[in-house]
Amino acid sequence: MRYQTIQSDANAKFKRWKKLADNTRFIKKEGATLAEGAHLVLTLSERKIKPAALIFRASGVSDEVGDVVRRWSDEGVDCYVLDNKLYDQISPVEHGAGVIAEVRIKEEPLPQNADCDVLYLDGVQDPGNVGTLIRTAVAAGVTVIAASRDSASLWSPKALRAGMGAHFAARLYENVDVTDLAGAFDATRLAADARGGSDLYETPNWEAHHTVWMMGAEGPGLSEAALSVADKRLYIPIIKDCESLNVGAAAAVCLFEQRRRRLQAKTLK
Amino acid sequence: MRYQTIQSDANAKFKRWKKLADNTRFIKKEGATLAEGAHLVLTLSERKIKPAALIFRASGVSDEVGDVVRRWSDEGVDCYVLDNKLYDQISPVEHGAGVIAEVRIKEEPLPQNADCDVLYLDGVQDPGNVGTLIRTAVAAGVTVIAASRDSASLWSPKALRAGMGAHFAARLYENVDVTDLAGAFDATRLAADARGGSDLYETPNWEAHHTVWMMGAEGPGLSEAALSVADKRLYIPIIKDCESLNVGAAAAVCLFEQRRRRLQAKTLK
Repeated sequence: MRYQTIQSDANAKFKRWKKLADNTRFIKKEGATLAEGAHLVLTLSERKIKPAALIFRASGVSDEVGDVVRRWSDEGVDCYVLDNKLYDQISPVEHGAGVIAEVRIKEEPLPQNADCDVLYLDGVQDPGNVGTLIRTAVAAGVTVIAASRDSASLWSPKALRAGMGAHFAARLYENVDVTDLAGAFDATRLAADARGGSDLYETPNWEAHHTVWMMGAEGPGLSEAALSVADKRLYIPIIKDCESLNVGAAAAVCLFEQRRRRLQAKTLK
Repeated sequence: MRYQTIQSDANAKFKRWKKLADNTRFIKKEGATLAEGAHLVLTLSERKIKPAALIFRASGVSDEVGDVVRRWSDEGVDCYVLDNKLYDQISPVEHGAGVIAEVRIKEEPLPQNADCDVLYLDGVQDPGNVGTLIRTAVAAGVTVIAASRDSASLWSPKALRAGMGAHFAARLYENVDVTDLAGAFDATRLAADARGGSDLYETPNWEAHHTVWMMGAEGPGLSEAALSVADKRLYIPIIKDCESLNVGAAAAVCLFEQRRRRLQAKTLK
């Protein structure tokens, strides 16, 4: 396998990766991001997504990815071995697998009246939360994720790590204003609202058509703008002693209650 | 308000807090931990748990906690102001609220044949995950949490932060062997098992009695030992394209499906 070694932080390629690692606006501008770890690399291979480049830690790479990496190298993917210190500057985790794939991402325009289920993130800030939410949504069969301008980047290396490959099974839209949801998706807009509305479990038929589940940030919850476009507000009946759920847990509860109802409806047909 | 300032890392009190911050075995030995942030401090106040000491960042403290802190100081709680650099060494988060409460924790022996719902963590390693799991369990009405020896500390400052106060509404048991669950709790042992068993939604009556939900680590899942003591293995019917859920999301789905069924049973009575 051929590769180029990079030992200086003045190297232009390294500087570009460092910028991708640190600056989510640069990710958008370049249409590229960094996917760290054996799991993500294997997912890319399974989904036949060829990386733009492969970056290795000089100290060595997890054996798991050997075959995949050799094949891509044979197919002409550029490979780079970085000094440990340089690698660690662009890795989203401290003790990683020693391999990063640079992957291209392309932004598509919002659809019009699309007939699908959607998860909408309204100001969710933490990249780890964002990644977990994408993973949970895809597992629940919701493969379209849209996010407001003040949410964390869906494509940051940290969000990718937490997503565990779910990003590549989903369609993702960033900088989506709540007022654009109605035109983009032909679906019932549901607000997950800890402060009021009706009981998630007792309310019938909210899942009858496609839905856009809107989830807010920890603390403030959904914005007024999001609440104002909601067709329904639903709350999870948590016990009184406890004030709220983490947004990842709340989304899991709502999206899987939707899945449960859909599966049951299928069985009854 | 009276307080003592600490400016040297050679100070004995500082050294002890640093050890509590870094070493979970020391937490156990001392029977004390550090609760950082305005939210945890307010929760302690609401639950009438008086801290052993209050630690402030020299740069200032969130206004929210002013009244609570003054009251405790009047009641004789020792207050300390730490140089920013020292404070940051013992804080579990980078940009905290500038206040940490040292709280006493006491370990109780496992009960015998207790009649209650339990969440059992089998090798869950990440302190953030552990905290979120405790929060989710309490919100779902499951206030007893037990953890295996190879799980992360339930009482680490990071787990406390992620728990958002749920720790103080729960009973927690650490170093619990799976083989001790049967004697301790008079409850059906349910294994959340991504690899097999029966469908969480289609299987009836698993919630009829009290339950011990057993959750494994990301990746390996439940240990053989845990599977071998399970009365039932249940899986969440995620879509095929996706391999698994994060343990926090999986627990949210299982514990709230239990809550849904219990609430529905109550309504039907």
